[in-house]
Amino acid sequence: MYRTNTCGELTLVNAGQTVTLAGWLQKSRDLGGLTFIDLRDRYGITQLTFNMDVNAALCEQARKLGREFVLQITGTVCERSSKNLKMPTGEIEIDVTDLKVLNAANTPPFTIEDETDGGDELRMKYRYLDIRRNPVKEKLMLRHEMMKYTRSFMDAENFVEVETPVLIKSTPEGARDFIVPSRLNPGQFYALPQSPQTFKQLLMVAGMDRYFQMVKCFRDEDLRADRQPEFTQIDCEMSFVEREDILNLFENLVRHLFKKVKGVDIPTMMRMQYADAIRYYGCDKPDLRFDMKFVELKSATNDIVSGAGFGVFDNAELVLAINAKNAALYTRKQLDELTEWVKDPRRGMSGLIYARVEADGTVKSSVDKFYDQEKLQAWAKACDASAGDLILILCGGTDKTRKAMGDLRLEMGNRFELRDPNTYICLWVLDFPLLEWNEDDKRWYAMHHPFTSPVPEHLDMLNTNPGAVNANAYDMVINGVEVGGGSIRIHDRTLQSKLFEVLGFTADEAKEQFGFLLNAFEFGAPPHGGIAFGFDRLCSLFGGSESIRDYIAFPKNNSGRDVMIDAPGPVASKELDIVGIKLNNI
Amino acid sequence: MYRTNTCGELTLVNAGQTVTLAGWLQKSRDLGGLTFIDLRDRYGITQLTFNMDVNAALCEQARKLGREFVLQITGTVCERSSKNLKMPTGEIEIDVTDLKVLNAANTPPFTIEDETDGGDELRMKYRYLDIRRNPVKEKLMLRHEMMKYTRSFMDAENFVEVETPVLIKSTPEGARDFIVPSRLNPGQFYALPQSPQTFKQLLMVAGMDRYFQMVKCFRDEDLRADRQPEFTQIDCEMSFVEREDILNLFENLVRHLFKKVKGVDIPTMMRMQYADAIRYYGCDKPDLRFDMKFVELKSATNDIVSGAGFGVFDNAELVLAINAKNAALYTRKQLDELTEWVKDPRRGMSGLIYARVEADGTVKSSVDKFYDQEKLQAWAKACDASAGDLILILCGGTDKTRKAMGDLRLEMGNRFELRDPNTYICLWVLDFPLLEWNEDDKRWYAMHHPFTSPVPEHLDMLNTNPGAVNANAYDMVINGVEVGGGSIRIHDRTLQSKLFEVLGFTADEAKEQFGFLLNAFEFGAPPHGGIAFGFDRLCSLFGGSESIRDYIAFPKNNSGRDVMIDAPGPVASKELDIVGIKLNNI
Repeated sequence: MYRTNTCGELTLVNAGQTVTLAGWLQKSRDLGGLTFIDLRDRYGITQLTFNMDVNAALCEQARKLGREFVLQITGTVCERSSKNLKMPTGEIEIDVTDLKVLNAANTPPFTIEDETDGGDELRMKYRYLDIRRNPVKEKLMLRHEMMKYTRSFMDAENFVEVETPVLIKSTPEGARDFIVPSRLNPGQFYALPQSPQTFKQLLMVAGMDRYFQMVKCFRDEDLRADRQPEFTQIDCEMSFVEREDILNLFENLVRHLFKKVKGVDIPTMMRMQYADAIRYYGCDKPDLRFDMKFVELKSATNDIVSGAGFGVFDNAELVLAINAKNAALYTRKQLDELTEWVKDPRRGMSGLIYARVEADGTVKSSVDKFYDQEKLQAWAKACDASAGDLILILCGGTDKTRKAMGDLRLEMGNRFELRDPNTYICLWVLDFPLLEWNEDDKRWYAMHHPFTSPVPEHLDMLNTNPGAVNANAYDMVINGVEVGGGSIRIHDRTLQSKLFEVLGFTADEAKEQFGFLLNAFEFGAPPHGGIAFGFDRLCSLFGGSESIRDYIAFPKNNSGRDVMIDAPGPVASKELDIVGIKLNNI
Repeated sequence: MYRTNTCGELTLVNAGQTVTLAGWLQKSRDLGGLTFIDLRDRYGITQLTFNMDVNAALCEQARKLGREFVLQITGTVCERSSKNLKMPTGEIEIDVTDLKVLNAANTPPFTIEDETDGGDELRMKYRYLDIRRNPVKEKLMLRHEMMKYTRSFMDAENFVEVETPVLIKSTPEGARDFIVPSRLNPGQFYALPQSPQTFKQLLMVAGMDRYFQMVKCFRDEDLRADRQPEFTQIDCEMSFVEREDILNLFENLVRHLFKKVKGVDIPTMMRMQYADAIRYYGCDKPDLRFDMKFVELKSATNDIVSGAGFGVFDNAELVLAINAKNAALYTRKQLDELTEWVKDPRRGMSGLIYARVEADGTVKSSVDKFYDQEKLQAWAKACDASAGDLILILCGGTDKTRKAMGDLRLEMGNRFELRDPNTYICLWVLDFPLLEWNEDDKRWYAMHHPFTSPVPEHLDMLNTNPGAVNANAYDMVINGVEVGGGSIRIHDRTLQSKLFEVLGFTADEAKEQFGFLLNAFEFGAPPHGGIAFGFDRLCSLFGGSESIRDYIAFPKNNSGRDVMIDAPGPVASKELDIVGIKLNNI
């Protein structure tokens, strides 16, 4: 028995007890006659005292110990003279009578403190030391809690967790697969799954009724800051359900997680049409923690800006405004800076027009010479702007202006601290388009995958106006982050055939690409639908961090490398030979 | 809403209610005026009735439906006239008023019944139909239960589930890795993990204290009947523990599982030295559901058979007997057959000698001409044999005889039905040898891995008699099946250096092979140890099946193929080019 207690649990209740603790030396203070050591384990920190007058030899030994040494001590729990009420063990200390060094330690390359002096690279290389730090450890423990409460909810809802295979078959569509040469089947390859999509649909055909899995998925993409080649999904599928059943159930899952993990009550989630999200927020994942909805000063159906001689507006397809409440005091310099910001190639706007509502109610704008006060008042009214507000206006082509205004809206949200990290606004975005037209191929493509069902009320339009057909699909968006998405699948063979026809597939082509799933669908597929949540992303949202990497124990960098273990690495050519491959450059 | 209830829950309590159900047509019986349909979903079967007199059109429609059609019906819950008390819904039936075919189905290639007419190959190809059958579905649900209760136990014991990476680094030792070419790092490869061994030790260095994970592992081995290229482990590691802490905790995990999943109380587990397991049962995973312990009639320390002129015994290194209680009535034919069985090349014995104790207490043996009654009585006494018992004797070299006798013991256990599938005898096998001598290389090899700690009391022998040093390792054996194993690891740098020295590694060689783990150990590694359970095997043991394949939703065959999705498969050469490899034969 290495310890009687952990370093996080002793309090005044234990005063007088003889205890044995084990852990790491967090820091030590040598005050001459007294030496204090903070002993740390996963559970907390306990202060140890060594007294020269009581046991000089032991105290001398304690003085020599370095940071991160692994110690085992025995001693008596005593009340501290100078208490630290910020920590659970802050009222006691241990008068040490026995000390054993379980392991020495080299000086760590960065400090093991909440605020460390180590840079990203160094901390990734020594990830096993970084995890000793509270902020990192706590993120991994949050992840564990999230897994636990997800599973308990799903189990209570009669979902069965089924492990689907990792070594599967490569498919030509979608993102790039990681491939694995098969030694037993020379010249052939497994692929790692991008998602268990086909398997979960097969489990519905198999009558499993309610399936879920917390599962690793893999995508060989060019990595961006917040992408990982391997990531974890909460993957779910249900039979005999309509969209409403799925929305209600998974809304409850997320509310359950907020309640259990963060103690936060989330009200019934809002719902928004995809078209409205694009029109009013410029993206399919609006952050609704703040308002600042787009106002169309000029659009296909409305125009209060043209004909005043201002060519920029006259020629624009769309003129959008947002009302930054109480921002009228924004200086010229700040506005110039914002103008540069929207002109940045990432936004690509030709300029920014503003109008501020003065204290007396008059509106002053950067285009005063074209618009009289009456017209400007009409803008203010359209934007519901009053004294002290700042109206920001962008214009140009529809898609580009919406996107740029969406970015500007978020930027203003950031600048005015309207995106409170402790507020959570959850939203379902519904009714995505089913198809998108590809001008190069002159054909329709499925926006998700060809098994996504149209909404029932649009079935008739599949022949007449396929571009207007909505998918029975849904995304869950929290604070502007897409955390999950899914759809009702097609289970009806006639509808499936019609959709393949619209997509320009022959029956043979459909068979070749989706053979075994279509085959399975011949044997009695139930109506079904599902959803998948990006678990790493969900954890980072709950943890209040921007990066998913923080929530992965051993993440990879932007080149797909694990710098700690130095993977990937070379493989001996005889090993390649055994699996029937060789390198291209040999 | 597709249904108000499932097919497994309606009883007389619901009589008179109007309900809507959905499911598959299990079978239908057309009795002329009446048609009965059994409707099946994951939860059970409910009988539907259609009456010609009441609604001829509906009844006609019902008559035409084929097996496995997907139906949605509405009707009234009624008391059955002829009840089936074997099923929960057997007292009611539904008088159907509305019927909708949700999907048609081709006739399945085998019957969807508990006892099916489909062969293995066919059922694997149509695994999604096989899972509709109760025995298969129930195995997957048992697996879910096992996962659930494992996790709840581990969580309650303060273990944190941490996901370790799947794309890691290939290592030369151990079984063969599956490798994954890295597109972003041309010429380099990831490997899929054979186990998270290094990562879990790093998590201990990281101060995670108690880690577990239910994790997919991968081994590119030549597949035997009961091996899968991907398999699942319950992987665990703890800090600041001694062997006793680990044995107690994981013994409790398994007892918890037996109690929760099977309602079986398992007493405190037995413990056995590895040396005794080999000596008395001929293997390191004895099935203790029955006794039949080996008796050494002749060994290095004991001999009651030599010197009687029977050269076979005189020349044998070891003569072993087992007592098959109450088997004296075994016929000559049966004994001849058993003799052939031990002479089979898999056992490789030159023959079988037997001695039976007659009703009057005299012993009659196949070597009577060498041994008088007094000597034979001594055998019987040594074997604790009495009237009606049959003593079976094998002899030869020590290792081979023990192994053959171990097989014979299990065979007799099978023949006399002593291996009751509903009895569970759990056992810890302890104190495996740390090292094994390789005569070719003239060097010691670690029996597990070079981080396995010796037992503390053998530390001194590392220099003087390394072959006699026991590892601080343990296996859990249930009913003759090794379900898990692990060890206390070395955390002390001096001991680790000494072990590498014994294994003939230079410091540089050790660094090259185990670099980042050794590096991590320089920064304060705590004493730690762990265990891993083969989860597929554990499930099959709980489910009472010999094959782990039954407990895997989508298993692979002996060639590593998934015959349902037809994986692995070819990959276009341009795809190979992108990841920097080509096939050998091109």
